[in-house]
Amino acid sequence: MRILLYRADGNTAPWIKDFADFLPEAEVVVWRPGIELAPCDYAVLWTPPQDMLADLAHVKAIFLTGAGADAIMKYAQAIPPHIPIVRLNDAGMGMQMAEYATYAVLRYFRRMDEYEAQARAGAWLQLEARDKSDFSVGVMGVGALGSHVIEALRPFGFPLRAWSRTPRTLAGVECFHGADGLDGFLGSSRVVVCMLPLTPETTNILNRTNLQKLPQGAYIVNVGRGAHLSDPDLLPLIKSGHIAGATLDVFRNEPLPAQHPFWQEPRVTITPHISALTLRRESVEQIAAKMRQHMRGEPVADTINRDKGY
Amino acid sequence: MRILLYRADGNTAPWIKDFADFLPEAEVVVWRPGIELAPCDYAVLWTPPQDMLADLAHVKAIFLTGAGADAIMKYAQAIPPHIPIVRLNDAGMGMQMAEYATYAVLRYFRRMDEYEAQARAGAWLQLEARDKSDFSVGVMGVGALGSHVIEALRPFGFPLRAWSRTPRTLAGVECFHGADGLDGFLGSSRVVVCMLPLTPETTNILNRTNLQKLPQGAYIVNVGRGAHLSDPDLLPLIKSGHIAGATLDVFRNEPLPAQHPFWQEPRVTITPHISALTLRRESVEQIAAKMRQHMRGEPVADTINRDKGY
Repeated sequence: MRILLYRADGNTAPWIKDFADFLPEAEVVVWRPGIELAPCDYAVLWTPPQDMLADLAHVKAIFLTGAGADAIMKYAQAIPPHIPIVRLNDAGMGMQMAEYATYAVLRYFRRMDEYEAQARAGAWLQLEARDKSDFSVGVMGVGALGSHVIEALRPFGFPLRAWSRTPRTLAGVECFHGADGLDGFLGSSRVVVCMLPLTPETTNILNRTNLQKLPQGAYIVNVGRGAHLSDPDLLPLIKSGHIAGATLDVFRNEPLPAQHPFWQEPRVTITPHISALTLRRESVEQIAAKMRQHMRGEPVADTINRDKGY
Repeated sequence: MRILLYRADGNTAPWIKDFADFLPEAEVVVWRPGIELAPCDYAVLWTPPQDMLADLAHVKAIFLTGAGADAIMKYAQAIPPHIPIVRLNDAGMGMQMAEYATYAVLRYFRRMDEYEAQARAGAWLQLEARDKSDFSVGVMGVGALGSHVIEALRPFGFPLRAWSRTPRTLAGVECFHGADGLDGFLGSSRVVVCMLPLTPETTNILNRTNLQKLPQGAYIVNVGRGAHLSDPDLLPLIKSGHIAGATLDVFRNEPLPAQHPFWQEPRVTITPHISALTLRRESVEQIAAKMRQHMRGEPVADTINRDKGY
């Protein structure tokens, strides 16, 4: 079996070593421009370079090294529809997302952002404690990662909401779905944690109209994709106080450009797309198991539905 | 039944209302200097003014509106030893402590303190993710509040340590105790969360000798009492990098004086003693239940052992 590997950062050696551990029968070939390529069974990559697309037409399946499908969907038309594209399911990312979201929610609930600002100003002032029953947390997107975030928040006793494309039932969580459920979800979520896949339907979902439906003093945590949020719509709502703060890990352009106004807004907390780093070893282990499934002719979980876009 | 109530802030009306709900048969008398006092059965207070001590000698029991015994122990000699002094057990504080400690631990584990500093400087740089197996969290003091903190941290998968005066067994937690166990505890705790009661034995327990026993790059979270930590011992260890950061909610003098060097040290995070605010209604409910126990002649939980000092 031959695996075609592409890493934009060129750091392929640890991936090859991990495949040797989890799939010793495989030969890993590193893709480079102009390479003379013997037929490969599977491709492993995140975003393929343009030159690689022709080679992808000859593999049996493509395995992505991330949980999102949006990066590959830009190239989907160049990849014959019979070739399954398989994304990662969690692979250590659920726990990281849970850590990040729990951190952000606790920080806002306990007003730690305000205490940070006070401390920098040398001020000692106890702020009024918040009522937890009034601090509902709504998670948008409740796949593997979103479910992990909900479970992490559960022991802290926040009222929980979820919004998803199709109906879901989660114990102890008020579940909303579809376009009809969006207003009810937004109106009852003091904190929104966006974990949606990026599709044409979810692009700009956090726009002015929808952000205004959040309760006064709401908070945004975006760990989905930058394009879920309309940056120019967020800023005036932060200035007016309708949105009390935003913790953003993803942006339309990354790195976030130096002149972007988010850098100057203290109520926007910026992290450099670190909420969930791909854990290489966990990823290779999962991809190897899925390749064995595919070889046995079994259905492979987390194969992208090209119509839905994730 | 008559209850003698003292509040340093003078805001007694909501306490009287809550006692009317939970103990309607009681008459609540507010203590004031020079008050002509009919005999009272119980006293409810935190730190009594000097003038009040004589009146305390005539009650059947004293109920503290906090979980620590250190404030009252300063006056213990003036209170006859047959009068039980009862502290609060949790009363909503365990959850608050769990929120605060989980926030602080996740912030350090995910290097959010460094990302905050980067963002203020307009820098976009992904830092290396930490290995959770190398990020052990040690809780000092595992009473009601410490146990709550341990349970909150458990789902996140940090290796857990505990240190207590007497032997304890906690599933999945490496437990140390007593003076003999302190070195082993400190040497294996990357983060120390101090939740000890303040006694002569625990005063200054976080001194230079003990702080140096922590692993390189350790973190301190102090939600116990300011006097657990030697401020002048901490600062050079932070400057040298041996201690990577400290989140301090309690201080020897509160408010922390404006000239204290902690305000100028960016690796010290200061909060104004807000990790666990007394929740009045929960407290009154608990105190009322304990008064009924006492009236029935039953042993009252959380009665201070004056020899141990908590």
